[in-house]
Amino acid sequence: MSKRPINFGAGPSALPESVLNEALGGILDFKGTGIGVAEVSHRSKEFVSLLADLENNIRTQLDVPPTHKILFTQGGGTGQFSAVVLNMLARHRLLHPTLPDEQRVMDYVITGSWSKKAMDEANRLGGASVHIAADARTKSKDSKSTDGIPAHEDFDFSADPVLIHYCENETVDGVQFSNDEQSPTSFPFHLLPAGGLWPLVADYSSSFMSRKIPRLADHAVIFAGAQKNIGPSGLTILIVRQDCIVDVDAAAKLGAASVPISMAYKPIADAGSLYNTPSTLAIYIASLVLERSKKLGGIEYYEPVNRRKAQKVYAALKEGEEKGVYCGKVREGSQSWMNVVFDVLGDNADAKFVAGAEALGMVALKGHRSVGGIRISLYNAISEEDTDKVVSYMKDFVAQNSSA
Amino acid sequence: MSKRPINFGAGPSALPESVLNEALGGILDFKGTGIGVAEVSHRSKEFVSLLADLENNIRTQLDVPPTHKILFTQGGGTGQFSAVVLNMLARHRLLHPTLPDEQRVMDYVITGSWSKKAMDEANRLGGASVHIAADARTKSKDSKSTDGIPAHEDFDFSADPVLIHYCENETVDGVQFSNDEQSPTSFPFHLLPAGGLWPLVADYSSSFMSRKIPRLADHAVIFAGAQKNIGPSGLTILIVRQDCIVDVDAAAKLGAASVPISMAYKPIADAGSLYNTPSTLAIYIASLVLERSKKLGGIEYYEPVNRRKAQKVYAALKEGEEKGVYCGKVREGSQSWMNVVFDVLGDNADAKFVAGAEALGMVALKGHRSVGGIRISLYNAISEEDTDKVVSYMKDFVAQNSSA
Repeated sequence: MSKRPINFGAGPSALPESVLNEALGGILDFKGTGIGVAEVSHRSKEFVSLLADLENNIRTQLDVPPTHKILFTQGGGTGQFSAVVLNMLARHRLLHPTLPDEQRVMDYVITGSWSKKAMDEANRLGGASVHIAADARTKSKDSKSTDGIPAHEDFDFSADPVLIHYCENETVDGVQFSNDEQSPTSFPFHLLPAGGLWPLVADYSSSFMSRKIPRLADHAVIFAGAQKNIGPSGLTILIVRQDCIVDVDAAAKLGAASVPISMAYKPIADAGSLYNTPSTLAIYIASLVLERSKKLGGIEYYEPVNRRKAQKVYAALKEGEEKGVYCGKVREGSQSWMNVVFDVLGDNADAKFVAGAEALGMVALKGHRSVGGIRISLYNAISEEDTDKVVSYMKDFVAQNSSA
Repeated sequence: MSKRPINFGAGPSALPESVLNEALGGILDFKGTGIGVAEVSHRSKEFVSLLADLENNIRTQLDVPPTHKILFTQGGGTGQFSAVVLNMLARHRLLHPTLPDEQRVMDYVITGSWSKKAMDEANRLGGASVHIAADARTKSKDSKSTDGIPAHEDFDFSADPVLIHYCENETVDGVQFSNDEQSPTSFPFHLLPAGGLWPLVADYSSSFMSRKIPRLADHAVIFAGAQKNIGPSGLTILIVRQDCIVDVDAAAKLGAASVPISMAYKPIADAGSLYNTPSTLAIYIASLVLERSKKLGGIEYYEPVNRRKAQKVYAALKEGEEKGVYCGKVREGSQSWMNVVFDVLGDNADAKFVAGAEALGMVALKGHRSVGGIRISLYNAISEEDTDKVVSYMKDFVAQNSSA
């Protein structure tokens, strides 16, 4: 048994201890080269084969169809907030070369602070107007606070937009779309106009590889930073439908904004994600995480485990709410499997909760600095046993602190 | 004594074995947190303090004045080829709001394939015309081949350019500016117009921290990927004069191109390089490399060592040239301390040289795929003893292969 603290941090976050131990070998001697993985050329046959294995592991475990390429880059979600806009604007320009910019629209679905940030970047970059296709902000347009996925009837997609952006899981707000298409809190794929090839962009940063991606094949771009479920920070994964890998320079000649070369999808795709030097060490550790995941059974293994983990924590939260100790922030049906956010009621009670957990070896439970409270992140590296420990603590805390 | 191969690769490249061993500890348990460095929040006090130490190590060892900020980002040199153009265009716009774009000029000094790539990106991005301030391409404008730094009299700087870009060390071509300001192959600082605050941009990717940076304080931006002298790939270091950290959104309102937020220097600077999640593992290892470097004596230690290493290899190359076995590619005075490039004369002789070296435990000596031949990279992690081994091999190879 390990004496490691259980790390419920929101990212960069826990990695499987067995992967860390395995990584030590490769950091000293990568694939028998005698040289560490951080020291070999990214163009060496050993590294190129590692990258191919990583891609294959993502493709098979997520069932990514051949219509979509898997790309690796740097810069995280923030980088993609810009890159996806620029690439999709270029695509729209090539499809509609003479359309005035005022008639180009980018649809954003606002369910929390990350989708809001993505929209802010679209507004910064310009080239099309921004339309809020749905808005979960409850208090005011300025508020960062959301408590769930908007009702399907409140979605209003534009005709032929440049892109339709949503954040599948809001790490700060703890709000996630349901993965059950029949649920009223699922993403309303059925409301998209008929015809397919939608410019649908999903930020999967904090739920990537934690469960199946509903309607994956219908997405234009799915992006995710590695640093939640599958690896260290510094690696960004893209799943891009091939019609969205466009010649941005041809689009620029038609009037689209220039795209920094490292953000253009086509050079990355053409070079097998080796247009420039990638973050080799992060890629290596992600590859170990996904090899381990494959051995466990891939998404088929993780999805039910992650469902149970979330159910247990939300059940404990509900008990605590009934006893007047906790106050959840997210409506049922919109509650994230990955990030459980709530307040502990009472003066300084959040800090007391965090301190008590730390004394028991459970760390990084503080909510995001913008919203406070508690956040329990339940990424893949958090086992069911780890979850049981925090659930047990949540219950004990209620028993000790409820006035009932 | 280690049995590790000596890794003469051009990057990602050798790291000190002691650093790799030390890193193993932090990958399991970072600063006594019980959690690995790849697992802790980039906003944790432990990581923030690591970042501050890294900055301080760069600042003190390179003697970076308080006029300049040190920033950390992702995306490498390729990312900066775009970022530096966009930020400097914004600065120029704020300085000269009404100047037509046709009258804005970006000066590029072409000394090899990386400066050429940087210029290509400036041409792609537009917003100003590109002026070649000096050109070392010997055969034709299309050739990637250069054999040295242009003569000072061939430099022709624009008046008030947006930027003046040069690549201090050309990793592929093995061409480097002299660090002796009196040398005819130094960067011609004396030809810059009087007045100072030049928009001077230097790509130090493959020579950063290997020796002092001449006239560092006169630079607007110095950038470098970590993966040559100081760490794994995934980390990019910027030294930016504070007048070049501008409000790119204010510039965009005046007509400058929008800058993707992750490429804008000001948000990075304002957030202490934590605007978004950085490449934490790469930062950690770089911090260990620079701690080790500090203990050795910093640049004061490395500069003479690196000079001697280069002198020894170039002396062996010259001997081989005199015996008709080798053919150097770079003129004396322009020869890189970091990357020694040459051909081995005769059919398949490059491959024979590489294979013979590999049999002796010296690897990654093949020249860049675009130019072929041999490349011996002598970054900081290559010791003088390692260098002596390759020099000895170079001499033995000559003895065995010269017809004389």
